[in-house]
Amino acid sequence: MKQPSETLPIPVAISAHHVHLTRTTIDRLFGENYVLQRRTPLSQPGQFSAFDTVSLVGPRGRLEHVRVLGPPRVADQVEISQTDAHVLGLEAPLRLSGDLDATPGITLEGPRGRVVLTSGVVCALRHIHMSPADAASLNVRDHEVVEVAIDSGGRRVIFGDVMVRVSPDYRLEFHLDTDEGNASGVGPGTVAHLTTAHLMSRSA
Amino acid sequence: MKQPSETLPIPVAISAHHVHLTRTTIDRLFGENYVLQRRTPLSQPGQFSAFDTVSLVGPRGRLEHVRVLGPPRVADQVEISQTDAHVLGLEAPLRLSGDLDATPGITLEGPRGRVVLTSGVVCALRHIHMSPADAASLNVRDHEVVEVAIDSGGRRVIFGDVMVRVSPDYRLEFHLDTDEGNASGVGPGTVAHLTTAHLMSRSA
Repeated sequence: MKQPSETLPIPVAISAHHVHLTRTTIDRLFGENYVLQRRTPLSQPGQFSAFDTVSLVGPRGRLEHVRVLGPPRVADQVEISQTDAHVLGLEAPLRLSGDLDATPGITLEGPRGRVVLTSGVVCALRHIHMSPADAASLNVRDHEVVEVAIDSGGRRVIFGDVMVRVSPDYRLEFHLDTDEGNASGVGPGTVAHLTTAHLMSRSA
Repeated sequence: MKQPSETLPIPVAISAHHVHLTRTTIDRLFGENYVLQRRTPLSQPGQFSAFDTVSLVGPRGRLEHVRVLGPPRVADQVEISQTDAHVLGLEAPLRLSGDLDATPGITLEGPRGRVVLTSGVVCALRHIHMSPADAASLNVRDHEVVEVAIDSGGRRVIFGDVMVRVSPDYRLEFHLDTDEGNASGVGPGTVAHLTTAHLMSRSA
């Protein structure tokens, strides 16, 4: 069995709450044929964060200045943390991106309008993006569930239930939401490591 | 070595942001000789949450309806999550309760006044309260740093850097903040277990 110190260090990225929008929803929130204003490229190729933001309106509360990510997608998707879900007053089921069946809706407000979504609110399942070469090096497969250790900031954690996602388009990166990043003391430059096999199962 | 399944299950409690106040600060926020209104007893004997709340005002933002815990203490202490620290726009160092040297200040607002604290803002170091009998049963000592596994809600986690706190006054309970509870899918009735020794060190 490989020891973790021999495995690739995996850069850690925290995804703050954000939305992916369809062309139709962008039209209604920002105006007909509005073009999202590119702010910064994301680490996953082709993706960018926009200067544009929306407000999320839930049954209990609101979140302002929630970043829109581009480019437009085929389905609206609102990714929030459990802390955010509590503020908004709704449930955010743990899902992989794109898996939106039976997810709650929410109201979006933009500078030109308001859209009531009937579904699309999720809390992102923690996951690692990687290329096929990285997957070979780490000895894991697409959709395998692994355990990942972060040792930083006085809040050491091993995360179980981490989904591996392999694509030639992906760059090696472990994605956490803000709750998970805070709980593990993640800061700039933090890296993670796959643990040796099945640590969690010993403690079940 | 004991296997985790043989160890005591440890109830998990999430501490939402809250404040402990001195007699003097209560006077200034709520009025001279104001008596905190008991709402619910806490699991640690003698402690209670009050109906009374304060607002926290930081350089970037505010948090409203932050619960006051009683009884009054010898020092003001504001316990927030890293998510809260980001909202407020300040740093909240990881500390055990009472360890307030070189911590940031904050402004508190109550119904009758405002108090500017020059220190006292912390993010609670995760910890387990236990009696001497529980410590003997779990084979740990006061101030020992242990690792604790939670297997719930599709977000399995092993937390490192967990401080053991032993006192005849304590009831067995693992205390996490909201970020940590959310990151590990804690819900009503969730229990934790001490892991077998030194899992984290294998993945450092």
